[in-house]
Amino acid sequence: MQKYRVGIVGAGGMVGQEMIRMLEKSSIPVSELRLLATERSAGRRVTFRGEEWTIEPTNPERFSGLDLAFFSAGRGPSRELAPEAVKRGVLVIDNSSAWRMDPGVPLVVPEVNGEVLTGKEKLIANPNCSTIQMVLVLKPLHDAARIKRVVVTTFQAVSGSGYQAVMELEDQVRAYVEGREMEKKFYPHRIAFNVLPHIDKFDETGYTAEEWKMVRETQKIMGDENIKVTATTVRVPVFRGHSETINIETEKKLTPGEAREILARSPGVVVVDDPSQDLYPMPIIAAGREETFVGRIREDFTLPNGLNLWVVADNLLKGAAGNAVQIAEYLVERGLL
Amino acid sequence: MQKYRVGIVGAGGMVGQEMIRMLEKSSIPVSELRLLATERSAGRRVTFRGEEWTIEPTNPERFSGLDLAFFSAGRGPSRELAPEAVKRGVLVIDNSSAWRMDPGVPLVVPEVNGEVLTGKEKLIANPNCSTIQMVLVLKPLHDAARIKRVVVTTFQAVSGSGYQAVMELEDQVRAYVEGREMEKKFYPHRIAFNVLPHIDKFDETGYTAEEWKMVRETQKIMGDENIKVTATTVRVPVFRGHSETINIETEKKLTPGEAREILARSPGVVVVDDPSQDLYPMPIIAAGREETFVGRIREDFTLPNGLNLWVVADNLLKGAAGNAVQIAEYLVERGLL
Repeated sequence: MQKYRVGIVGAGGMVGQEMIRMLEKSSIPVSELRLLATERSAGRRVTFRGEEWTIEPTNPERFSGLDLAFFSAGRGPSRELAPEAVKRGVLVIDNSSAWRMDPGVPLVVPEVNGEVLTGKEKLIANPNCSTIQMVLVLKPLHDAARIKRVVVTTFQAVSGSGYQAVMELEDQVRAYVEGREMEKKFYPHRIAFNVLPHIDKFDETGYTAEEWKMVRETQKIMGDENIKVTATTVRVPVFRGHSETINIETEKKLTPGEAREILARSPGVVVVDDPSQDLYPMPIIAAGREETFVGRIREDFTLPNGLNLWVVADNLLKGAAGNAVQIAEYLVERGLL
Repeated sequence: MQKYRVGIVGAGGMVGQEMIRMLEKSSIPVSELRLLATERSAGRRVTFRGEEWTIEPTNPERFSGLDLAFFSAGRGPSRELAPEAVKRGVLVIDNSSAWRMDPGVPLVVPEVNGEVLTGKEKLIANPNCSTIQMVLVLKPLHDAARIKRVVVTTFQAVSGSGYQAVMELEDQVRAYVEGREMEKKFYPHRIAFNVLPHIDKFDETGYTAEEWKMVRETQKIMGDENIKVTATTVRVPVFRGHSETINIETEKKLTPGEAREILARSPGVVVVDDPSQDLYPMPIIAAGREETFVGRIREDFTLPNGLNLWVVADNLLKGAAGNAVQIAEYLVERGLL
């Protein structure tokens, strides 16, 4: 059995840490693990399948000899360093937004469009977390009834912004309980007991980059530029688990019951939809799980063919690390790596 | 100058307490204040414009002699007791959902449809909190461009559910900081660091009563049954201030700039919309204010005539107590009471 030499760039971050754990649980045989991060994390030891590996400072030379590298170090480092890895013959699976819309780079959610992978890729992009959980639910409905338009609102957890944001919510809540002033450092406004309609940068249209990601990445992953998406993305004081209200208009009529059946047999999707028993997806049930949860599936009575959906997933697992590792598994299992 | 004998039913609750404060600040001359509540709150003293009044147990006999009574005691007590007050010649302004959809009862947001009031009413209904802030923003846009369809998602604060819910979030957050288990009593699931797509009861359509309120009350207040509304209402771990993403399709084209201008001159509405300076409405800026805040006004590029909006208001002030007191002020100022 072939074993792989695997690098993780950004191994000290929240997503990097989850990647190590997801890779450990995966079916991918690993002969060597190279953990690369900033100087701050260098020297930390990580146990992986019983062996110990040490986090090293990121250095392009250390890409040499790798078969595969997961990048989760942000847009800037990916722009700069992914080509260095590719040049050294390493397949890069990149979690940042740096390469996602590059026409030569596949943007992949394995359950949705794994078939675009040929084994000839040098660089594969992992989509934005809030997009992944949305397309997992939209694709099977699109195949059944063709989706024409999507109106999505997100409720995104602070872990989507990394450690500092998690600590900020933690610190603010502690200050509140202890009767101290809640200070802000990371976000432009307080996040505890508040919501911020602001994720990533604003552009001249008034939309944020996060909102545009949900539009453009959805069209690319679903392979259909005709799907219209309009998004409002909002940060909420939740540690883990992104939630979304998704309103769709379809060409063909789908009843809620039909949608439920289609989604119940869709890979990676779990239907939790029994409101009479107070059962619906929530961050507290999705946290720590790799599946995407959908519920509150109901007819939109304002359209001839419309549905409302409520979708929740762990933004670090399926949303980021999990999907990236799944891409690698998909390649390994099909002999494409 | 005529002075009024005013009753407040449910004076011990969160909205009741806000009503006392809002009435105090209002232009309504009050000669007598009768504060009625459950036995639990009875005996509590309340200072109002320098005079002291004592909360008494609710008893229909105590409605006699009042000119006006604000009811904020929930649907059941309103159903039972409002007719008792009306029978005794008292004008009732009711904050519950008990009478809102009754065809003989006006449902009023003064800035939006105050003109329906004739002075002959015996009972006037105060709309649902999440509806009030939405119609305040929709009405001027509807007048300018006719709204055909609305897709709304809410982010609702726990104070909308009353004291017990506020204490529940408070207790759970304290437990988290102190490393204890977060217990739930009031909501069916934990609310701290979580979101619940569940406000009020579910019916057989899969929608909640709160969602239907946003549909039906909007049509009634706007006086147009052709406005289509579909809603998803969600509870978030915020103490005070409801937020809403509102997607609208209009008959006539409105640019974001035109919408901003229209809203800037609309009564009760404040435009906060300068994302480049991190300025947008949030619960922390709306809390304690009587206005409704709107921002993130932008074109919905998926429609020929569409806009996305973000609307935030203090659910206890404009949302409940403030609007009820404003209805009374409207009547008094026009000599209709």
